[in-house]
Amino acid sequence: MNAIRVAVIGAQGRMGAQAVDAITEAEGLELVATLGSSDSLESLLEKNVDVAVELTVPASTETNVAFLVDHDIDTVVGTTGWDADKLSGLKELLAEHADTAVLIAPNFSIGAVLAMRFAELAAPYFDSAEVVEIHHPRKLDAPSGTANHTAQRIAAARNDAGLPPVPDATEIDPHGARGAVVDGIHVHAIRQQGMTASEEIHFGSSGEALTIRTDSHSTSAFMPGIVTAVRSISDYTGLVHGLENLLDL
Amino acid sequence: MNAIRVAVIGAQGRMGAQAVDAITEAEGLELVATLGSSDSLESLLEKNVDVAVELTVPASTETNVAFLVDHDIDTVVGTTGWDADKLSGLKELLAEHADTAVLIAPNFSIGAVLAMRFAELAAPYFDSAEVVEIHHPRKLDAPSGTANHTAQRIAAARNDAGLPPVPDATEIDPHGARGAVVDGIHVHAIRQQGMTASEEIHFGSSGEALTIRTDSHSTSAFMPGIVTAVRSISDYTGLVHGLENLLDL
Amino acid sequence: MNAIRVAVIGAQGRMGAQAVDAITEAEGLELVATLGSSDSLESLLEKNVDVAVELTVPASTETNVAFLVDHDIDTVVGTTGWDADKLSGLKELLAEHADTAVLIAPNFSIGAVLAMRFAELAAPYFDSAEVVEIHHPRKLDAPSGTANHTAQRIAAARNDAGLPPVPDATEIDPHGARGAVVDGIHVHAIRQQGMTASEEIHFGSSGEALTIRTDSHSTSAFMPGIVTAVRSISDYTGLVHGLENLLDL
Amino acid sequence: MNAIRVAVIGAQGRMGAQAVDAITEAEGLELVATLGSSDSLESLLEKNVDVAVELTVPASTETNVAFLVDHDIDTVVGTTGWDADKLSGLKELLAEHADTAVLIAPNFSIGAVLAMRFAELAAPYFDSAEVVEIHHPRKLDAPSGTANHTAQRIAAARNDAGLPPVPDATEIDPHGARGAVVDGIHVHAIRQQGMTASEEIHFGSSGEALTIRTDSHSTSAFMPGIVTAVRSISDYTGLVHGLENLLDL
Repeated sequence: MNAIRVAVIGAQGRMGAQAVDAITEAEGLELVATLGSSDSLESLLEKNVDVAVELTVPASTETNVAFLVDHDIDTVVGTTGWDADKLSGLKELLAEHADTAVLIAPNFSIGAVLAMRFAELAAPYFDSAEVVEIHHPRKLDAPSGTANHTAQRIAAARNDAGLPPVPDATEIDPHGARGAVVDGIHVHAIRQQGMTASEEIHFGSSGEALTIRTDSHSTSAFMPGIVTAVRSISDYTGLVHGLENLLDL
Repeated sequence: MNAIRVAVIGAQGRMGAQAVDAITEAEGLELVATLGSSDSLESLLEKNVDVAVELTVPASTETNVAFLVDHDIDTVVGTTGWDADKLSGLKELLAEHADTAVLIAPNFSIGAVLAMRFAELAAPYFDSAEVVEIHHPRKLDAPSGTANHTAQRIAAARNDAGLPPVPDATEIDPHGARGAVVDGIHVHAIRQQGMTASEEIHFGSSGEALTIRTDSHSTSAFMPGIVTAVRSISDYTGLVHGLENLLDL
Repeated sequence: MNAIRVAVIGAQGRMGAQAVDAITEAEGLELVATLGSSDSLESLLEKNVDVAVELTVPASTETNVAFLVDHDIDTVVGTTGWDADKLSGLKELLAEHADTAVLIAPNFSIGAVLAMRFAELAAPYFDSAEVVEIHHPRKLDAPSGTANHTAQRIAAARNDAGLPPVPDATEIDPHGARGAVVDGIHVHAIRQQGMTASEEIHFGSSGEALTIRTDSHSTSAFMPGIVTAVRSISDYTGLVHGLENLLDL
Repeated sequence: MNAIRVAVIGAQGRMGAQAVDAITEAEGLELVATLGSSDSLESLLEKNVDVAVELTVPASTETNVAFLVDHDIDTVVGTTGWDADKLSGLKELLAEHADTAVLIAPNFSIGAVLAMRFAELAAPYFDSAEVVEIHHPRKLDAPSGTANHTAQRIAAARNDAGLPPVPDATEIDPHGARGAVVDGIHVHAIRQQGMTASEEIHFGSSGEALTIRTDSHSTSAFMPGIVTAVRSISDYTGLVHGLENLLDL
């Protein structure tokens, strides 16, 4: 089997530099181009690129991805800022390129993606479910998008299974210790110096608990997700939204 | 929908008494018979039983289950002692009763069953995997059957995915701190007063960890598994080995 | 050394029955009397009791303890309902009995008492501190008294050490995921079927975390605290408030 | 109060560079000199240094520390390789410099030091105690020195309190899942990609558990320990062995 020929766009950023290292070390992948912010995308065309990894900035990502799709290069996108409008434009473009695939992934941590999926699978089997997320204290919003999304998926799975609301006799909680309630699921946010991004999902029934925890200690946590995506994106076509769609779950 | 008519056999034991309570409280189930060790199985025949729960002792379980299958009553078995010979005999009997199903489950903890399944799904995505089990200090054997089986399933999943052995540079370990090695996966057994049965499965890659933990604090932990099994066993036929086969995973 | 002669008052309640068993099994203790609600305290006087364990109900505890102090019997009290008024009356009574000691303990879990003390000792050394408590979903109030008290002691220790407020850049938290704030320390309350009473205390600094967790799975968790108290109460005089004062920390 | 004037020796190594940053940012400390491997220690003498931080290599540390003590500069040593011989020579030298103090610390993680101390304090109150350590898979030896030392201190504390051996009915453990036994305490070593250095200490009694966990995610975890040591070393004289002696526990 030939190696997959990979280009990294945005190779000088922190994520980009780590992606360059990760792809260089990954078996079956060959790094054939690295582009910084001053390099032209045109230079890729002579490199016979199979998959591009786009790790730039919100202001550039849409133009970059359009160029890549126009040249039928499968693309793994880790840049944020893909709102509904941009996604809709990308879908239209992909409709004209039937063999090309683009992955837009808000979270490249395989652990976080697996945890969310397992939470959804476990939800129907337990009376209680709550979500705790732990992030560094520089984070501006609470709860995290991942915790929010996890709670929504747990709530949907409970609903599909016909479960009643989670049991909770709390009558007195003057200062809000029970946390945020997202679709009926309580979500708690801890801010702790020295942590990066963690999530702990609690399930409980009489005499029994199931706890699923995922910890990211550095952006290097995203590299296995990027490598996995690079390896499998060419098996797909069109827009793939979320890393979970490329995992075999 | 009519309620499922349930009989509990071995209703005077600890598990049996809890099963009686759990079935009485469960929506959609109707408890129509409870048999102790001095009661005759014949008494069930006039009760129009849909599902029997067999929670007796190893010496009685085979005879009881044969009687139930002969009368085409679907059965959920929580009694231990079903070795290969007994299972083989049961399969033969079930072959003559095409519409009847029997579940033999070594572990009715839904949390433990889910944890094992999630471990198998997660295994291909991480460099490292280890299993820790914690049990009460009266346990005679280490590691637990569940931990052993979890390690085997992780090893098989890693193998199927073509992963190399787990990384481990240990050269000096004079007293065996690295624990048991089951199919290449390290397994550690903690014995701790006040615990019943817990398992913690560790996965790690660069910058990232996924931890799956399941705790059983009492035999009441097995009741949701028994109720789930009673609800779904009639959708199956033949021998079903392991609660995981009845869960929607 | 002679065995300590112990009486249990309220021996028919759940806690009382467990205390009877625990004292019977404990080395160095001799159970010489067990009183139920219909037994007279007078019957103790001929038993040469060294220490009484009072585990009755809020309506009886004050009268019982007064009787015991009047007869110079050291007493370990596990009954709730000792408000400031009752404590004040007890202190006056003890002033007339210079050799007699009474322990009033709101929490007999040694783990919980140790966790609080360790939290206080660790607090000066970390930038961040938060408290999570987990209780059964029948609990009416949040957060638990123990979590509240833990947060207060952490806050006081930080204050004594001259630490600034915990770092927290949160600007957007529309639903209160950051939980309750007790003296500047965030406190989160989880309600989970199958849990009894747990507390997890998180400390963090750059690159480092310290986590202290205590779990009570049943009222049997309080027995080691009661036995420890029975063993050492006679080394004290007057009112001792809180089990921590009898531990060697 | 005047700022403490600090020099970092070995400022170009990874630990040294982090120490330079940590001291620069720490209130009450002033960084007045940074020496690399090619710089002469003589250059310190005109800088009026209060405290030196020695973070070089085993081959240089003894000579460096001797020079510093000879010039009555209090010193915090983070370099390894201080065996009994070197320590003995240092003690003799310090005997001639009554006002000078040197801290030799094998572990600058405040979390790890606190965890060990708390383990020792908790040990007398629980039936069961076990130690689990988790390190990166490049570590050559198991268990870690810290886990080994923690087990020894737990064992000593249990012994002082007159506790019997930990309960353990294990009869069948063909592959060593119960781990290493250090002074009667079981110790387990996990090797996990993405982890740096963690330790989890388990205590259990009937119905109750206490768990103390410490995680170091990077060498930045050692900076608070170094800053704490720099701030307080001048309150001591002679050889101080172990960071715990400078903490207020």
